[in-house]
Amino acid sequence: MTKPASWEPRNPAFDAVVRESFSRQAMMTTLGASIVHLAPGEIHLAAPYAPQFTQQNGFWHAGAIASLADSANGYAAFSLAAPGTDVLAVEFKINLLAPARGESFLAAGRVLRPGRTLTVCAADVFARSGGTATLIATMLSTIIVRDSAPATHSSS
Amino acid sequence: MTKPASWEPRNPAFDAVVRESFSRQAMMTTLGASIVHLAPGEIHLAAPYAPQFTQQNGFWHAGAIASLADSANGYAAFSLAAPGTDVLAVEFKINLLAPARGESFLAAGRVLRPGRTLTVCAADVFARSGGTATLIATMLSTIIVRDSAPATHSSS
Amino acid sequence: MTKPASWEPRNPAFDAVVRESFSRQAMMTTLGASIVHLAPGEIHLAAPYAPQFTQQNGFWHAGAIASLADSANGYAAFSLAAPGTDVLAVEFKINLLAPARGESFLAAGRVLRPGRTLTVCAADVFARSGGTATLIATMLSTIIVRDSAPATHSSS
Amino acid sequence: MTKPASWEPRNPAFDAVVRESFSRQAMMTTLGASIVHLAPGEIHLAAPYAPQFTQQNGFWHAGAIASLADSANGYAAFSLAAPGTDVLAVEFKINLLAPARGESFLAAGRVLRPGRTLTVCAADVFARSGGTATLIATMLSTIIVRDSAPATHSSS
Repeated sequence: MTKPASWEPRNPAFDAVVRESFSRQAMMTTLGASIVHLAPGEIHLAAPYAPQFTQQNGFWHAGAIASLADSANGYAAFSLAAPGTDVLAVEFKINLLAPARGESFLAAGRVLRPGRTLTVCAADVFARSGGTATLIATMLSTIIVRDSAPATHSSS
Repeated sequence: MTKPASWEPRNPAFDAVVRESFSRQAMMTTLGASIVHLAPGEIHLAAPYAPQFTQQNGFWHAGAIASLADSANGYAAFSLAAPGTDVLAVEFKINLLAPARGESFLAAGRVLRPGRTLTVCAADVFARSGGTATLIATMLSTIIVRDSAPATHSSS
Repeated sequence: MTKPASWEPRNPAFDAVVRESFSRQAMMTTLGASIVHLAPGEIHLAAPYAPQFTQQNGFWHAGAIASLADSANGYAAFSLAAPGTDVLAVEFKINLLAPARGESFLAAGRVLRPGRTLTVCAADVFARSGGTATLIATMLSTIIVRDSAPATHSSS
Repeated sequence: MTKPASWEPRNPAFDAVVRESFSRQAMMTTLGASIVHLAPGEIHLAAPYAPQFTQQNGFWHAGAIASLADSANGYAAFSLAAPGTDVLAVEFKINLLAPARGESFLAAGRVLRPGRTLTVCAADVFARSGGTATLIATMLSTIIVRDSAPATHSSS
């Protein structure tokens, strides 16, 4: 999945618009996640390890990892969307490659193919511990871009 | 995906073993989730809507829905596993079919094919509001069954 | 994935329209596939085993199984589409549950959720040998419905 | 999905072993596919456009594209497998990014994470026409590595 040289944002205010929407995702606040990198078509989200999001062995739950990666892909897509639109995940698939343990997690989402209706994104999730980062998951997502007004309908 | 008449549990204590492991999933406690049905090869998990797990429009975040469905599939697989084993999600794919809003959510996980090494499960997630239940997501998961002793290695 | 009582076709000529499109899928002709059941929102495709579509051990190649299941899901979606539209697969995920060997294969596709833009379908694939049918694969697909005129653009 | 600097093959004869197995995949012969690049953990397969593998609009069927990508991922995994083993696809997910039209197709498969039991691979598929290559699909696969002797059991 070679990354194109650059994506052209359709919304000159993409940075502010992405950050404003991200700030309204209570799930990200709950996970303690923040935006550590943002550019057209790509975003990095980081979150500290916290014990309340673990599975039975003390690793982060696959759903917590998926939450971070799903938001990364959603906002990578949103950074290229036209003004007055919103994005919704249609579906995603995640492979868990290694146990989710570490001091913090980083989800790096990027657009593979932007579209008027559908945008396809990929995210890699890393666990960081000491000075090292280990790839622990990879996600492939389909995201729909829609007019933002009526947020009352289903994802299609 | 026709459900077989019944699955034979390899662990006669499957009910206690599943509930004990579930009680150690801090993520499920955090979401307020509980087991509302458990039988060999199938489990239903329920969780009340709570605003701290939402996305930007006030619906439950896809990652919260995925957390519930992933645990449902994991424990459906675990209910058929031999004594002395543990389960780990290898990968899953989820389709979000409708916005995740409602008073509570129910994830119904079931085994499609049990295996010595890999078990494949499917979960449907419903949003409940008033007397109605709406299908809002469906997940297909691959789960690996391993000796439970060393929980220190990666998922394969 | 409980099947709804019935789906309402938007195109009264759905049966003829599905069969006409199917007859133009050279891939299905090449596989020797035919429609053995068709109703609104569901279709069964059958194909005989043939050695030219095998992998290294003489089983049907996962791609041949996926071809049959993808067409089943596409035509399940198409059977509910409005007149003047066409369908394209956006993505699919398939789990291979058992080796694809047998005298023939049957892919049963059905709509899980129809939409104006996106339709989600699931297919089960069975291998038939003697009098028995074995579930060998299950697929979850996202399909886009579009105006049929210009078939020259990408899937979104 | 940053590619590691290099993968260490466990089988010094990996090149011959991959090519021998590939030559037994009748599906690849039927598609006219050949190996155009092979290194530890990565492989490129090419196939010419041929009208017998098309869908209703004359593009290559998603199943034909998936066949090429599935074999690419399987052989990328196999190139790192120990002697005396075989590989089987457990599951894969593919996103179709653009219509599959062109003079030929190239599937580039690579290992994301090799494992004793499970290997995770990703493939990108390009359509080539004139001097240009267009990314038309991306696949994420889980592959199981097993002793090669009894090819008579299921994938897990």
